[in-house]
This record gives sequence, C-alpha cells and structure tokens, in this order.
Amino acid sequence: MGRWQPGARERLVLAAVDLFAEQGYDATTVVQIAERAGVTRSTFFRHFPDKRELLVAGQETMSRLLAEGVAAAPPEATPLEAVTAGLLRASTAFGEMSREIAPRLSAIIAANVELEEREALKSAGLAAALTDSLRERGVDESTAALAAELGVLAFKRGFAEWSAGDRRDDIGPRIIAALHALRAAAAALG
Amino acid sequence: MGRWQPGARERLVLAAVDLFAEQGYDATTVVQIAERAGVTRSTFFRHFPDKRELLVAGQETMSRLLAEGVAAAPPEATPLEAVTAGLLRASTAFGEMSREIAPRLSAIIAANVELEEREALKSAGLAAALTDSLRERGVDESTAALAAELGVLAFKRGFAEWSAGDRRDDIGPRIIAALHALRAAAAALG
Repeated sequence: MGRWQPGARERLVLAAVDLFAEQGYDATTVVQIAERAGVTRSTFFRHFPDKRELLVAGQETMSRLLAEGVAAAPPEATPLEAVTAGLLRASTAFGEMSREIAPRLSAIIAANVELEEREALKSAGLAAALTDSLRERGVDESTAALAAELGVLAFKRGFAEWSAGDRRDDIGPRIIAALHALRAAAAALG
Repeated sequence: MGRWQPGARERLVLAAVDLFAEQGYDATTVVQIAERAGVTRSTFFRHFPDKRELLVAGQETMSRLLAEGVAAAPPEATPLEAVTAGLLRASTAFGEMSREIAPRLSAIIAANVELEEREALKSAGLAAALTDSLRERGVDESTAALAAELGVLAFKRGFAEWSAGDRRDDIGPRIIAALHALRAAAAALG
C-alpha cells in the first residue's frame, strides 16, 4: 500500500467527516469544511455540489465499476458469477480511507433522516445499475432483480464487517463471503 | 365494494396528487391542497406534517400490517410463507384510491429527487420491518434479509402491475404471483 497521500478531494471528505462528527451535520458549513481541509471554497465546489453529496460521492464510480465488472464476466458466467465479478471490480474503490471514516460516517448518516434518505436512494441506484447490466447479458427480469438485490445486500454486509474489523484485509473476500451466505439462504428458501 | 366516500385524509391525498400533477410538486403549497380538498389548513396538519409526508403516509400502516401478518403465520410456516402472510395482510390497505392515484404518484415521485429519496427510504423501512419480524420467528439473519428483499420486490412488482392494469381485481394475487416468480429465480441461481 505504501504511505497514502490524500489529495484535495480526500482531504475534503476527511475534514467533513471530522466536522460532522464533532459538531453535527447541520451545524457544519462548506466554508468550515474547506478551511479544515486547507483548500478554498471554490475548490470544494469543484469537487462537490454541496455538503450532502460529499457523503455519497462515490456512488457513480461504484455503479460504473459494478456494471463494468458484470459486463466483463465471461459469457458463460451465471448471473451470480457476473454479480461477483461486478462486486470484485467495485471493491477496488475501497481503501484505507473508506475504512477509516466508515464508523463515523455510519453514525452521521443514522442521525440524520435526510442523509438516510440519500443513502437509501444510493442503494436503490446500485441495485438498478446491477439489474441493468445483468439484463444486458440477457438475464430475465426476475432473476436480474433478485441477483442485484443479493449483490447489494452482500456489499452492505461485507462492507459493514470489513469496516468494523481491525485487520488490514481487503474488502473483496468479505463481500464474496456475504454473497455466498445469501446464495445458500436463497437455495434453502425452497 | 360499494360507493367509496373519501374522508378528509383521502380528499387531501387526492387533491395533492391532482395539484402536483397539474402544476408540479414544488409549486404546490399546503394551503392550496387544503383548499382543493375543502378542508382547513389545520386539518391538513392534523393528518400530515408536510406535503412530502403526505405521499408516503401509508408506510407505517404498511410496516405494521406486514409485521402482523408475519407474526400471525403458523409456527411451521417457512420464511417465504410467513412473508406471503405479511404481504397478504398488507395488501388489504390497497383499494380503489391507491390504484387510481398510482400512475400519477409514480410520475410525480420520479420527477423529484427529494421524493425519490423518501420513497427509497420507505422501501428500506419495509424491508427492515419484514426482516425484524422474520428474525423474531427465529429465522437466521441471511435468510431473513433475503426473504424480506424478495417480499419488498414482490410487493413493488405486484403493485406496479396491479396499478397499470384496468381490471378491478385485488392486488394480493398479483403480489403473490410476483413472489413466486422471484422464488423460482432464487432456486435457479444455483
């Protein structure tokens, strides 16, 4: 991994999470975040439209990575194998910084209905991206929707376990383990 | 069914959906909604905290009905049978008015990110209610989460088909058919 040198975007996220945790989300302004990050207000707005989007800014990247991974899976891959490929591709976006801020980020989101709503729509967006990319492989609608939901559930559980753990492992295997557990549960539904 | 006589709450919802469709969500005020419904502003606020909540006001009722149905399923019911019982109980909340306003409501929500977010959190809340009620039956975590997602997907699909159809059938069978399709898909995931 080497030493990690955050750029302006990462410094803004870290500063925002610190400030939200210290003084609350509502009380924190864009100016304060920029100041704490050591950048100007206009640098903030080059990266994020507002303080709320800063918290879910990774969504587009993640949807893209999920879709790319699914598309790149071999033609003979089953829907769940394609989802696995998407999840593994998306997991490359999660490094030390994601893990470091995750517990505070969850607490901030849980304390604010507006942020919970944004987060819920983000999950729905990830499921939709996965569903669409499976449909493009010719997977039928029910199977695509189901496999996508399994993928999103597996991602959430894998992420939660990974960010709660103190080992410096990769997130990918955690997500795949969660997906296996869900697949086993699906097979047992009868 | 007999002739349906809407009370103040239903008139407020109908008036709001009309106004949102006619002039947009943002341009519509609580005062306009109350006026169109023939009630006072304070009657509005006795029923809803604001115009946004009016659109998702059925969520608590639905979560309660889902949980009640799951809890009332016989002890030997499988997780999906318990979900079926919950969905059938919840489907009793959907009558002619729900069907009448559904297409406009979907269009209004799709046109407004703030409403989409609220709707996404509502779905997450229904899944959480189903998961919790399955956990209380002793269902393990993965199976409960999965069965709950299947239930919410089935509800959404059944509702969409039912509200797009022009026959005056009940919503329950549509939801159950969607759940069966998802269960078949789950079994085929391998």
